[in-house]
Amino acid sequence: MKAARIHEYGKPVVLEDVPIPDIGPDEILIQVKACGMCRSDAQLIDGYFRPFVDIPTPITIGHEISGVVSTIGRNVPKIAGFHEGDPVGVAPGWGDGVCRHCLVGNTHICPNVRWPGFGPYGGFAEYLPVPARYLIKADRGLRFEQIAPLTDAGLTPYRGIKKLRDAGALGPGRIVGVFGVGGLGSYAVQYAKLLGGGAKVVAFARNADKLAIAKENGADHVISIKNKTSEAIAAELKKAAGQRDLDAIIDCAGATEMMELAFSLLGISGHYANVGLVGDRISVPLLPRVNREQTFHGSYWGNNTDLSEVMALAAEGKIRHTLKAFTFDQINEYLDLLRMGEIVGRAVMKF
Amino acid sequence: MKAARIHEYGKPVVLEDVPIPDIGPDEILIQVKACGMCRSDAQLIDGYFRPFVDIPTPITIGHEISGVVSTIGRNVPKIAGFHEGDPVGVAPGWGDGVCRHCLVGNTHICPNVRWPGFGPYGGFAEYLPVPARYLIKADRGLRFEQIAPLTDAGLTPYRGIKKLRDAGALGPGRIVGVFGVGGLGSYAVQYAKLLGGGAKVVAFARNADKLAIAKENGADHVISIKNKTSEAIAAELKKAAGQRDLDAIIDCAGATEMMELAFSLLGISGHYANVGLVGDRISVPLLPRVNREQTFHGSYWGNNTDLSEVMALAAEGKIRHTLKAFTFDQINEYLDLLRMGEIVGRAVMKF
Amino acid sequence: MKAARIHEYGKPVVLEDVPIPDIGPDEILIQVKACGMCRSDAQLIDGYFRPFVDIPTPITIGHEISGVVSTIGRNVPKIAGFHEGDPVGVAPGWGDGVCRHCLVGNTHICPNVRWPGFGPYGGFAEYLPVPARYLIKADRGLRFEQIAPLTDAGLTPYRGIKKLRDAGALGPGRIVGVFGVGGLGSYAVQYAKLLGGGAKVVAFARNADKLAIAKENGADHVISIKNKTSEAIAAELKKAAGQRDLDAIIDCAGATEMMELAFSLLGISGHYANVGLVGDRISVPLLPRVNREQTFHGSYWGNNTDLSEVMALAAEGKIRHTLKAFTFDQINEYLDLLRMGEIVGRAVMKF
Amino acid sequence: MKAARIHEYGKPVVLEDVPIPDIGPDEILIQVKACGMCRSDAQLIDGYFRPFVDIPTPITIGHEISGVVSTIGRNVPKIAGFHEGDPVGVAPGWGDGVCRHCLVGNTHICPNVRWPGFGPYGGFAEYLPVPARYLIKADRGLRFEQIAPLTDAGLTPYRGIKKLRDAGALGPGRIVGVFGVGGLGSYAVQYAKLLGGGAKVVAFARNADKLAIAKENGADHVISIKNKTSEAIAAELKKAAGQRDLDAIIDCAGATEMMELAFSLLGISGHYANVGLVGDRISVPLLPRVNREQTFHGSYWGNNTDLSEVMALAAEGKIRHTLKAFTFDQINEYLDLLRMGEIVGRAVMKF
Repeated sequence: MKAARIHEYGKPVVLEDVPIPDIGPDEILIQVKACGMCRSDAQLIDGYFRPFVDIPTPITIGHEISGVVSTIGRNVPKIAGFHEGDPVGVAPGWGDGVCRHCLVGNTHICPNVRWPGFGPYGGFAEYLPVPARYLIKADRGLRFEQIAPLTDAGLTPYRGIKKLRDAGALGPGRIVGVFGVGGLGSYAVQYAKLLGGGAKVVAFARNADKLAIAKENGADHVISIKNKTSEAIAAELKKAAGQRDLDAIIDCAGATEMMELAFSLLGISGHYANVGLVGDRISVPLLPRVNREQTFHGSYWGNNTDLSEVMALAAEGKIRHTLKAFTFDQINEYLDLLRMGEIVGRAVMKF
Repeated sequence: MKAARIHEYGKPVVLEDVPIPDIGPDEILIQVKACGMCRSDAQLIDGYFRPFVDIPTPITIGHEISGVVSTIGRNVPKIAGFHEGDPVGVAPGWGDGVCRHCLVGNTHICPNVRWPGFGPYGGFAEYLPVPARYLIKADRGLRFEQIAPLTDAGLTPYRGIKKLRDAGALGPGRIVGVFGVGGLGSYAVQYAKLLGGGAKVVAFARNADKLAIAKENGADHVISIKNKTSEAIAAELKKAAGQRDLDAIIDCAGATEMMELAFSLLGISGHYANVGLVGDRISVPLLPRVNREQTFHGSYWGNNTDLSEVMALAAEGKIRHTLKAFTFDQINEYLDLLRMGEIVGRAVMKF
Repeated sequence: MKAARIHEYGKPVVLEDVPIPDIGPDEILIQVKACGMCRSDAQLIDGYFRPFVDIPTPITIGHEISGVVSTIGRNVPKIAGFHEGDPVGVAPGWGDGVCRHCLVGNTHICPNVRWPGFGPYGGFAEYLPVPARYLIKADRGLRFEQIAPLTDAGLTPYRGIKKLRDAGALGPGRIVGVFGVGGLGSYAVQYAKLLGGGAKVVAFARNADKLAIAKENGADHVISIKNKTSEAIAAELKKAAGQRDLDAIIDCAGATEMMELAFSLLGISGHYANVGLVGDRISVPLLPRVNREQTFHGSYWGNNTDLSEVMALAAEGKIRHTLKAFTFDQINEYLDLLRMGEIVGRAVMKF
Repeated sequence: MKAARIHEYGKPVVLEDVPIPDIGPDEILIQVKACGMCRSDAQLIDGYFRPFVDIPTPITIGHEISGVVSTIGRNVPKIAGFHEGDPVGVAPGWGDGVCRHCLVGNTHICPNVRWPGFGPYGGFAEYLPVPARYLIKADRGLRFEQIAPLTDAGLTPYRGIKKLRDAGALGPGRIVGVFGVGGLGSYAVQYAKLLGGGAKVVAFARNADKLAIAKENGADHVISIKNKTSEAIAAELKKAAGQRDLDAIIDCAGATEMMELAFSLLGISGHYANVGLVGDRISVPLLPRVNREQTFHGSYWGNNTDLSEVMALAAEGKIRHTLKAFTFDQINEYLDLLRMGEIVGRAVMKF
């Protein structure tokens, strides 16, 4: 089968032919139909994660995976209800099943977590073995290129927004800011409306095309931050939405400087959920965090429950998709476009 | 009456004689019996807060105030139940009563908040007008020098620990770390035990005397961090408490470098409540905050509800006090001791 | 001024002329513009509440009050921002300001609570004194007959739905049932959509006209329960919404038999918020409550924060109003219509 | 092996010899060392559950099980860390692993849940197959007769108390009432202290011996309810604890009349967690539930996380055990004692 693999960090991925993998008794072999491309694919290739965990090569990249059930392991329980040909999305974050976090379903923060696309098997390949419990059945009305990015770009901000909502930061009269309106942010805007309970949504970005997407996806206001001071942006926010500060922020970029800007706009008792990994550090003034009693939530990808909820929203047609399809042969080309920030919405490879 | 006032930032406070203040119809005149001395008194004098709010002089310092009811304003409602001579503690954070935060009792984060000791009236003076709703009656079994520090040193970490508990970070099998075992931290250790629901409490500090206080106040383990690497401390923690990381942290210092150390010890899904203001900035690596899904809670002083709960604990004898009494004439001398970190527990001025 | 007053329980209210009331220093005199009529007005007249609290006559009824600021008491703080002629809604549940519940803004459950319309002053009168802190400014784009019912019919289910949301009972893939689609229920359907985060909303009632309103107000499905067994209704629910049970229920009636029916439809881990007072008792099988781990939330009216949020939704045009206007002279006539269940939506008296 | 089995409902259990069961690949064979006896064992025999689920005979009773690992199935993952001879407790509520509740660890409310002791295999037998994920390793310092009841009597009230704590019902100045101080209640008293964060604990029962146990286990006050009115009990409560009503209740009995009594003592904003199944119905006045905004939590047994926490508390010596040991031959005799309410604390069978 075809597979796109890292053999050497810092080099283009190699598109090659490899054997179809075997499956264990609790696994299902998935025939990949589509796989989204994520900034973290490029970061993985470029060695961003090596100081934290040095994954041995070859690595098959690709972790936003949709496909169909191909072969079912002999111990997969009948009650799970899988049949050959079922359309599925692959939940990320495969845990060990025994740690404290797995016990409550947060397998994605298991200390022994494994990830598709960060080891021998990934979604930029024709087949992939997946533990049965990490497959979510998808509505047949959805296309595979729609399903694929829901497992990360469409999942990660969902979990972040849920943290904001569960913290009581949303609701009527509140304003939530979306920072970084790329692959994840175009979904974030929608979840902010869906889960906001009446909150106004304001998107912030440098790129006018991305702001236009945010507007199409339901943002009440969009504000360009290009070459503007925090003070100027606060004034613009006041004019647009009636107050100078934000009650909640979902940051889909995590860029160090933009975080400082965003924090400067966060109001009293404000909540800040960050799901982005662009920067290396968070560095902000301390006093306003304390005397405004602000809360920072690190939020990472999502778990099975989150993905099930996202899939339910998608099945009901409540999610708009901003996609750019490409083919297996174009993987390295699209990785470069991604590195340059040239992709609006999400790029998805289709077989 | 006697009052200790700032006339010029950066200079010693002036101990002088001033008129007894008038009260408004909703206020009560308090005769001060004791007033705790706080690091923020020194910070105020030294100009730490001026970049954020430049309070005009003269300022009467002192915000950890206990005393007795002296004169009651004519509009104070009978149902409040105050009588001349009642022993009281003064709740901090007097709000405007109409903002969103005041509506739910968080008067201390009101955008128009006023503070005793940060304006014309404070606790290092013989009398002080206080809006009636910010007085909490104290149990007659408590001494005034015990009551005074409960309104800040004994209140601030209580609110921080409640945030950890309400976030689900405490409980059996969990370990909570207390960083910065000074005036606030010696209370923090106790609240961590009282509200921890079975969690182990480990105190971290440089100063052996402070660690000894932590141990007396119920810490299960104490670890000196003086001249040790994060790795060495993690190993020591593992040996003492069975795991290398902390499930929750209450930071009573907020010193930039110690925050980076503390964050390096925070585990998956860990919660970090900071109530200290020693440093100017928070600056930590981003990735572990995100992929371990950690939460940072800025927590500031406390509200009336928090103080009522602290007073209830104190009335039942559930709080140990580590106090160092001094007199009005010694104020400047004790401010210097505080600046040098020479005070173990809390220094309290008694009239 | 005109006022509709109870002089004797069980008799029609007397429409009479009485002096305009004085105000206290913290109060504002409101000129009433509209007042909604509530089932509890009839219950008050008919003596339903007397076993619990026997309010002395004469009583001016009416507690869903909108109007304009007429005279401002001398101690009302400037920062509250009231001016003569401001349109306002009257928040219910005037607390003593000192109890544990008032401290966190839940003045409506204060043990010393007072209510407009349940004592000497009420909204079926031309003027009414109101403590300033219980007035919420209304958007000038709203009509007075729209504002009035927001203070109870449009407030009470909002608080109930918030309890369901904050309990985690709503969200994508969940189904919330609305029982009792009268004055309150027609709002409840809307809040269930607005705060549901993607949950499906199913309305249940006997009356076809009320179900039609529910459908207009956004219910995904409506089910008539008239002469149907629990089993038949469950089957119909399955057909309409894909599952036989409900994940959450907001009950706007509180009728004993309908509660038993509704509970029989509540699923595992289901949450039931009741805001209705039609019945005397709740009586249901115990075992399913326990082994399905269900939660019952009594929810009562709402507080200032809730009303501010409702007003914010209304100001943005997010609330549909189903109103039936009548005049002061028709009060007794409309009380009878209400007793017979003949009113669809909310009846509102306009001056 | 020996096994105590129901062959006919309503008859004594038959003590007989049966083959040692086989295990599946994901299971572990446990050699039972001790098994607690629960009121629900008697209810099962007597047919209480048959209207809800009619379990086919023969049934091996016993669900409070401790023992040692005997044989390990071939697919049990190494990371689970089990070895022959390990002391374990058996977690109740074996879920299907795929439902919404299992996904977040609440396997005990899975719609397809299975229970040891409610089918072919149970703890009143020498051996028992258990899915590996439902075994919790026990500290070697605990005795088997201490471990056994922790899996139900010592687990069920723990989950109930956690619900009260997480609802914000506990803390300094609050009073929590424990109703029904039998097998479960003697643990409930302890958890109320451990998790109460300073709340006072008051135990209510008819039986003086049980109240004495409650006192020994840490109750601040105990009140006999025998032949007393609600009014008399409220007065006694006021005298003992300073207020006439309770802020929270954990009900370990669930007897219909006692529930009405307990609810009559529940204060404004009070929370009531019920874990008992003595009665058939809950029947209480409606109005006070609503206008005091009370919440009722059905709570059922516990999940793996709860049991792990209970085991952690036990390992640290924080749980007192009130046990009455008996032998396999005495099972029917002890079932009769239980039916008559003659057992103080928990009866545990030891092999």
